[in-house]
Amino acid sequence: MLEINSIKELRAVIRSERSKGKKIGFVPTMGYFHGGHLTLMREAKQHADIVVVSIFINPTQFGPGEDLDKYPRDLERDRRLAIGAGVDILFVPSEAEMYPGGYVTYVEVTGITDVLCGKSRPGHFRGVATVVAKLLNIVSPDVALFGKKDWQQLVVIKKMVSDLNMDVEIAGISTVREADGLAMSSRNKYLAPGEREAALVLSKSLRLAHDMVGYGETDPARLAASLEKIIGAEKLVKLEYLDVCDPDSLAPVDKIETDTLIAVAAWVGSTRLIDNTIVRPHLENSGGLV
Amino acid sequence: MLEINSIKELRAVIRSERSKGKKIGFVPTMGYFHGGHLTLMREAKQHADIVVVSIFINPTQFGPGEDLDKYPRDLERDRRLAIGAGVDILFVPSEAEMYPGGYVTYVEVTGITDVLCGKSRPGHFRGVATVVAKLLNIVSPDVALFGKKDWQQLVVIKKMVSDLNMDVEIAGISTVREADGLAMSSRNKYLAPGEREAALVLSKSLRLAHDMVGYGETDPARLAASLEKIIGAEKLVKLEYLDVCDPDSLAPVDKIETDTLIAVAAWVGSTRLIDNTIVRPHLENSGGLV
Repeated sequence: MLEINSIKELRAVIRSERSKGKKIGFVPTMGYFHGGHLTLMREAKQHADIVVVSIFINPTQFGPGEDLDKYPRDLERDRRLAIGAGVDILFVPSEAEMYPGGYVTYVEVTGITDVLCGKSRPGHFRGVATVVAKLLNIVSPDVALFGKKDWQQLVVIKKMVSDLNMDVEIAGISTVREADGLAMSSRNKYLAPGEREAALVLSKSLRLAHDMVGYGETDPARLAASLEKIIGAEKLVKLEYLDVCDPDSLAPVDKIETDTLIAVAAWVGSTRLIDNTIVRPHLENSGGLV
Repeated sequence: MLEINSIKELRAVIRSERSKGKKIGFVPTMGYFHGGHLTLMREAKQHADIVVVSIFINPTQFGPGEDLDKYPRDLERDRRLAIGAGVDILFVPSEAEMYPGGYVTYVEVTGITDVLCGKSRPGHFRGVATVVAKLLNIVSPDVALFGKKDWQQLVVIKKMVSDLNMDVEIAGISTVREADGLAMSSRNKYLAPGEREAALVLSKSLRLAHDMVGYGETDPARLAASLEKIIGAEKLVKLEYLDVCDPDSLAPVDKIETDTLIAVAAWVGSTRLIDNTIVRPHLENSGGLV
């Protein structure tokens, strides 16, 4: 595995691979890899000849008071895991390489960034869209892969790529979960044992959503109320939002009559976690979360 | 010359040319070609094998009450001129092709868009940056050429390309002028004969700037006052701004001691015109405007 810190050097390597007809797959990350990241990398290997993974903890997507400084880092471990997942190029740029002095340009995807996580994290998706635009321009992959755990991020990036006519395929990959259902996240590391247990209520509530919709519930308000009730019963968990909305526009739905996104964000102690699922009415409930 | 309306078709043609090792040069325009456009096209031919010219009157860079509706159009004439200038591909997308329903993404270059034309045209450079980002992503040229007459636009685009790591060279080409000095512009068509004569005061004032700096003037305020005085004497012309600033940061300068931008915008009747020049102290005055 090649490890590269310089944009110029990465471009030269990718240009050379592309000239040999190689297809480039790209997985942008903030590092501290878990099973979700590794699934993205292995999936990338299915889609492309050369897999590029970036590790960059992007400061512009963290708000004041958020966990930028304490965000978990372990490059040595990430290297080993990336090699194990068959990654060809690990791109680890410095902040100065990504945002040199005098940096002033931002990409804004409007509207769909005002809801869900965008409500409580103003500027977050501007930071995400900007850094992803930069990384896509640097790597120029044929395909870039993102986890569905960050559903809104995936929607925002797909919209940006489509609106700005960026010539890349964006693939969304199913959330990877721990055996007990907790969606994998680098932030799970923050959880104390009691919190780790309490955090399960999020995936449990999403399973309940599948069950309720499977049994014919079509009213978003009633569904949300039931889910909020079981989350509310968990003392260590403070719900930030639980929204029932269209998976593409992220607009609230009046009735659950087609694929519908149930998205949840909650604080477990001082850790903010998100999770989501797509419920499918009128189809047999698969029982699993996607 | 190929004329193409569809993004998909253009991409296929360019991909095919690139696979033959051809270098792509690109000149984005709003049509109604004048000598400045034709110079850009001929210059592109020097830089590249295949010259792509786009014609798109971009609605998002016009403010309310601006001249979007009356902006001059003559596609038949533009076609003939483009063929004469050796253009290989004329790309003429519709508004629906560029901004399909549900379009929500914008590129903002902050700071340098708040001064000069940005002051009186809020949102203008957001529209420019966004459409140029889209066009660069669609055409994926090796080099894109812009006129220096729109100096701030050139600076904004260079900054966007650098900040977003877009893999394209941006070339600025000297302003082309009528024999009497008026900077060529599609908007010159709006000028009544008396206004056309009055508009000359803009290029005259910039020539005066060269003379004054050539004779040793280093004080921006005194220089600006002299230029404003001769522009003010022209009854049909209403000055919007005359700024003496750094050519890259567009920040006002305290002293003219290196290459300095003199940028002017003025209304001539109901027509808004811009012009600029770079003055070079301590060098022999060339007498010409750049």
